[in-house]
Amino acid sequence: MEKILEQTLLYDFYGELLTEHQRQVYEDVVLNDFSLSEVAENRGISRQGVHDMIRRCNKSLEEYENKLHLVEKFLTIKENVNRIRQLTGNPEDQPVSELMEQIERISMDILEEL
Amino acid sequence: MEKILEQTLLYDFYGELLTEHQRQVYEDVVLNDFSLSEVAENRGISRQGVHDMIRRCNKSLEEYENKLHLVEKFLTIKENVNRIRQLTGNPEDQPVSELMEQIERISMDILEEL
Repeated sequence: MEKILEQTLLYDFYGELLTEHQRQVYEDVVLNDFSLSEVAENRGISRQGVHDMIRRCNKSLEEYENKLHLVEKFLTIKENVNRIRQLTGNPEDQPVSELMEQIERISMDILEEL
Repeated sequence: MEKILEQTLLYDFYGELLTEHQRQVYEDVVLNDFSLSEVAENRGISRQGVHDMIRRCNKSLEEYENKLHLVEKFLTIKENVNRIRQLTGNPEDQPVSELMEQIERISMDILEEL
């Protein structure tokens, strides 16, 4: 997965576990794409301080994911739901009984992730 | 929701964020139903110490849920997946096109939770 996408997903899930200050700096740099120097100036901290904070935030977010695996779970669920939508979008491709069986099987896969 | 069920769910989701020691004591008392005195004796801590630790663990787990709402999300997803299974189990109740539309709508509800 692309680094920025991965960071955004991790932040979506675990961002609330960072401090308010960390969240502000992280959003400025990673989500809103301000430069380290701009954020440093705006927040009255050193450029190196901003850099270190982003690194620590990434480390925290990754540690949460390593422990809880929620991003991974959610991506798998999303994939499975989209498989169901693929089937409901093309119901004429096969007999109804087979279609129902496939949707039921994918539903069971989703429940196993929960 | 029943207290013990709620505690078990919270522990399932966020237990990994407690320390190893907290997890052991929590599992003994809450999941394996040992008495505070038994656990205190086994672990070489006071009965009051066990009691306080359980209270702190519950507080931590609830704080994680208040911030992340993952148990709530997962319960809603589970409910929706079971609604899909209800439909696939009784496909003769309605025309295929309507059935597909309903499953599609529930799928979208699930995606919105993610």
